[in-house]
Amino acid sequence: MNREAVNRKIRVGVLGFGGLGQAAARILTPKKEMLWVATADKGGYIYNQAGLNPDDTIATYGKKGSVGYVEPYGTISGDSIKDLIEIADVDGYFLALPNLPNTFMAEVARSFIQSGWRGVLVDALKRTSAMEQLLSLKEDLQKAGITYMTGCGATPGLLTAAATIAAQSFSEIHSVKITFGVGIANWEAYRATVREDIAHLPGYDVESACKMSDAEVEAFLETTGGILRLENMEHADDIMLELAGICDREQVSVGGLVDTRNPKKPISTNVKITGRTFEGKISTHTFTLGDETSMAANVCGPAFGYLKTAVSLHRRGIHGLLTAVEAMPQFVR
Amino acid sequence: MNREAVNRKIRVGVLGFGGLGQAAARILTPKKEMLWVATADKGGYIYNQAGLNPDDTIATYGKKGSVGYVEPYGTISGDSIKDLIEIADVDGYFLALPNLPNTFMAEVARSFIQSGWRGVLVDALKRTSAMEQLLSLKEDLQKAGITYMTGCGATPGLLTAAATIAAQSFSEIHSVKITFGVGIANWEAYRATVREDIAHLPGYDVESACKMSDAEVEAFLETTGGILRLENMEHADDIMLELAGICDREQVSVGGLVDTRNPKKPISTNVKITGRTFEGKISTHTFTLGDETSMAANVCGPAFGYLKTAVSLHRRGIHGLLTAVEAMPQFVR
Repeated sequence: MNREAVNRKIRVGVLGFGGLGQAAARILTPKKEMLWVATADKGGYIYNQAGLNPDDTIATYGKKGSVGYVEPYGTISGDSIKDLIEIADVDGYFLALPNLPNTFMAEVARSFIQSGWRGVLVDALKRTSAMEQLLSLKEDLQKAGITYMTGCGATPGLLTAAATIAAQSFSEIHSVKITFGVGIANWEAYRATVREDIAHLPGYDVESACKMSDAEVEAFLETTGGILRLENMEHADDIMLELAGICDREQVSVGGLVDTRNPKKPISTNVKITGRTFEGKISTHTFTLGDETSMAANVCGPAFGYLKTAVSLHRRGIHGLLTAVEAMPQFVR
Repeated sequence: MNREAVNRKIRVGVLGFGGLGQAAARILTPKKEMLWVATADKGGYIYNQAGLNPDDTIATYGKKGSVGYVEPYGTISGDSIKDLIEIADVDGYFLALPNLPNTFMAEVARSFIQSGWRGVLVDALKRTSAMEQLLSLKEDLQKAGITYMTGCGATPGLLTAAATIAAQSFSEIHSVKITFGVGIANWEAYRATVREDIAHLPGYDVESACKMSDAEVEAFLETTGGILRLENMEHADDIMLELAGICDREQVSVGGLVDTRNPKKPISTNVKITGRTFEGKISTHTFTLGDETSMAANVCGPAFGYLKTAVSLHRRGIHGLLTAVEAMPQFVR
């Protein structure tokens, strides 16, 4: 690799253009070290080597439902991700895709492997079972020359990495308890995310939540005053901390409170790490996020921090699958 | 490197046997993945390939003033570190050495470079100027095949790494404010550390604090009720966060309250990271350590977590100098 390749901006693609994908575009735009060049959604894709305009793209997506309609760089396609991979010169993709269906992230990873593309992939997936599917692709990703970092959002991601740092004070970890608070002014900006949350509630599963119409989601939220109270969620923080040898997955718990009608967080998002020190003392470290930081900031920020790290690893020839607790995220200027 | 080398315990040396060195020995003893095999202090060294006994070693050091007197593995030496490097088969050393004189850590690093030894070094140094000296050895360390991780204690170390994770939510960092509380029952168990703290006070410097007799330290502490109130300390957290591109060193501040007569912490140790999100919101993430965790647990735990990471890097052929915010510490079982 020549010096030019090292010094130029990292060319980033964002797959998915819902709430997270749009926030990702906004976050990338002022960055000196990264350039947003490509996006695909269900209906099409957009690509420009010199960079994309978030205002145009978000406005057109809002009006017409796909980035494929954006003039002059959009293309309508029924197989948008595959088509984009084939034509775009991208260093790394952030998979800002819906977590549902649960097999979707692994399917997309397989598309990248089959295409012969080499580079960096980063996801912000949530469910343990989705990460297990990716773990089974570890060797295939390595052979394909892809560096895939999984679980790089807020939780898993930011909070799991903080827990990994915190664990260092202890000889033995007893529990890692993640509690998140999310406030969104308008649930329709996060249609997929809200359905994912509903899928964690008693009486619902991934399939039934996925099938709900907007009217059904609306009716359901009416019964709870717009609040979703989530306990013992299936979250991949557990498998990540287990793989890192920090504790058993049963010692990790994730829960939260989502207010779908108020941008103010109903509680402060935090992770509490309890363990025993070498002197036999039991204690708890706490990492608390400022309430003014949005879900989008806490998910997309880490995702690009890990993307930068993954690009360094990829350039050093380190390929395969890594989780967010195996590498330090870098700061993207 | 064969499979046996990968699977066997990491053989660890601890240089220095004051409060930190002794805590390090206690922390290492129950570990399945590491084995404490060597230590050197001012008067001698001790080495046994099958592992050392912390009770014997601490008792003899307490009575006679050097691990060199421990039967049957101790050796009295006027050049203990150099002698130990020459004879001991060690994968990585934790430099639990006094931070004063300020040039000491870099001098020890030079001894390792000159000896032709290859392996891992980890320090828990504190001062920016001490880290700057090590940074000037970066290329020499790389050529020598040494992987040196610097700033791997509590602060810098644990708290700086937490700040690096926290920074991910923000587009721009405004301040990183570290405030530590330390409670020690008996200052004489941490003679060097207390002198280092005094050196940060107005009217003192490294040289004058270093020269103080125990009686002078005692008399000084009498005037403050045993409390040391520290502000705007020279701490290498600043240079580490600047090197990682997170903020300018002027935006980092370190202060604390040390009670030298009470094991209870006078305040909870914490780091506050304030920044601006991509949406323009100003917010603060906070990482707070449990009061029951001792300075020893918060310094030595991370040091060995980073030592484990450094051994992985060394085995991959990654040599040179890294700071604690460039790699994720691993958990040592």
